[in-house]
Amino acid sequence: MADTIRLRLDLAYDGAPFAGFARQPHQITVQGTLEDALSRLLGQPAATTCAGRTDRGVHAVAQVVHLDVAVDAARAVSALENVDGFRRHLDLLVGPAIAIWVVRRVAADFHARFSATSRSYRYRLVDAAIADPIRRNDRWQVGAKLAVPPMRRAARLLTGEHDFASFCRRAQGGTTTRRLDEVVVSRPAAGRIDVRLTGTAFCHQQVRSILGCLVEVGRGHRDADWVGQVLAARDRAAATAKVAPPHGLTLERVSYGRRWPAAPPPAVR
Amino acid sequence: MADTIRLRLDLAYDGAPFAGFARQPHQITVQGTLEDALSRLLGQPAATTCAGRTDRGVHAVAQVVHLDVAVDAARAVSALENVDGFRRHLDLLVGPAIAIWVVRRVAADFHARFSATSRSYRYRLVDAAIADPIRRNDRWQVGAKLAVPPMRRAARLLTGEHDFASFCRRAQGGTTTRRLDEVVVSRPAAGRIDVRLTGTAFCHQQVRSILGCLVEVGRGHRDADWVGQVLAARDRAAATAKVAPPHGLTLERVSYGRRWPAAPPPAVR
Repeated sequence: MADTIRLRLDLAYDGAPFAGFARQPHQITVQGTLEDALSRLLGQPAATTCAGRTDRGVHAVAQVVHLDVAVDAARAVSALENVDGFRRHLDLLVGPAIAIWVVRRVAADFHARFSATSRSYRYRLVDAAIADPIRRNDRWQVGAKLAVPPMRRAARLLTGEHDFASFCRRAQGGTTTRRLDEVVVSRPAAGRIDVRLTGTAFCHQQVRSILGCLVEVGRGHRDADWVGQVLAARDRAAATAKVAPPHGLTLERVSYGRRWPAAPPPAVR
Repeated sequence: MADTIRLRLDLAYDGAPFAGFARQPHQITVQGTLEDALSRLLGQPAATTCAGRTDRGVHAVAQVVHLDVAVDAARAVSALENVDGFRRHLDLLVGPAIAIWVVRRVAADFHARFSATSRSYRYRLVDAAIADPIRRNDRWQVGAKLAVPPMRRAARLLTGEHDFASFCRRAQGGTTTRRLDEVVVSRPAAGRIDVRLTGTAFCHQQVRSILGCLVEVGRGHRDADWVGQVLAARDRAAATAKVAPPHGLTLERVSYGRRWPAAPPPAVR
């Protein structure tokens, strides 16, 4: 078997034009776009692994991906101005909806998914009657005024280690127990609410399902304690709120403990 | 002739999906979309006049439009909850890329274009090596670091009343003399530069042509005085810089002196 080196890529993307992160036949996906560009640049098939697959329409400011590159192609990489030339080429090839922040060589035991120690997502809400159309692509305009204090009380009931079965799409065999370290509900400007969630890992649709429930509370349709009851029920049917739409959600940060390189500088927003 | 009332509409739009403001056959335009929705709601043909036609791809946070409505339909308007219900209906009909802030009845001598006393545009630039893809739709990523002080010096040379022939697309017969009250170059965040231009009126492509020249100065390809020489030449051929792309430009404010209603509250951004 040929020797390989492992590369880590930190990237951002606009989820709108993609059918999610994961490669799928006959669909334009982030992974498909990325791997096609990598194959072209490296002259060999490229198989990537990401920190967290995002659904159709979900954005990322700091997704992390690794891949192994056979040494011959790796020489080509290092020849390209110590990896940054390679980054620029790749960035141009993947197009304007994906941005490649950093390409780094990492040790062979770095794993984009399994080495990750925490993930943060931000969900953006607009509760003004009218919103700026140019900003509609990464926030959910809920069409009603939301009250932040009960949303914060509900958020507090969700932090800690719990079985989140009520908030997860049918488990893929595995456990639905997760630790949610922090849920911060803030109002960055009049008419806007941000919810930032940090945890070791999330199950499928967990963030959007939680958001759907928090918005019900913010609207005053339910009180904060209801969210606690939904959690305790450990039953998907208990979360009667609609799942929040994907376009309000952004994967904002993936952390890897002290052994691994830090995340790239924050995006220019 | 039937009696009419005049309505003023304040609206915002994402320029990306439209072939500009002005109605054109076989093209999706802001005016076409707006007039079709108005005709449907009012049950009569609707002809609108705007404060400033924006080119293909240019955005607006606060465009102003007026139209005359025959009294029969006007009764229908006032029946709809004192115009705000009408606004909501119209807002839904025109779709998510256009937002209708306010609908107001105004005196018959209010004119969206001729009553306007000043217009402000903002042009957003990114001079970081990498930008957030989700924010790419309303800013121009210039691909090089820009120096703000020489851009400010150049901007100062352009303020005041001048013949802007060098910065205007072939004059439509009329004068190319305009008064530019203010050009403010600011850095709202690392990697970002905003240029805000305020004047009584602008000729076609004036803002984007000025921006193309300011970016040349920011890059260090030209010095600030060169912009003064371009202005003095009164010749389109003197402005050798590329015209800045439309998607970085937003019509941000139209003012109408004290007699007329104030602009709507700033957009939720």
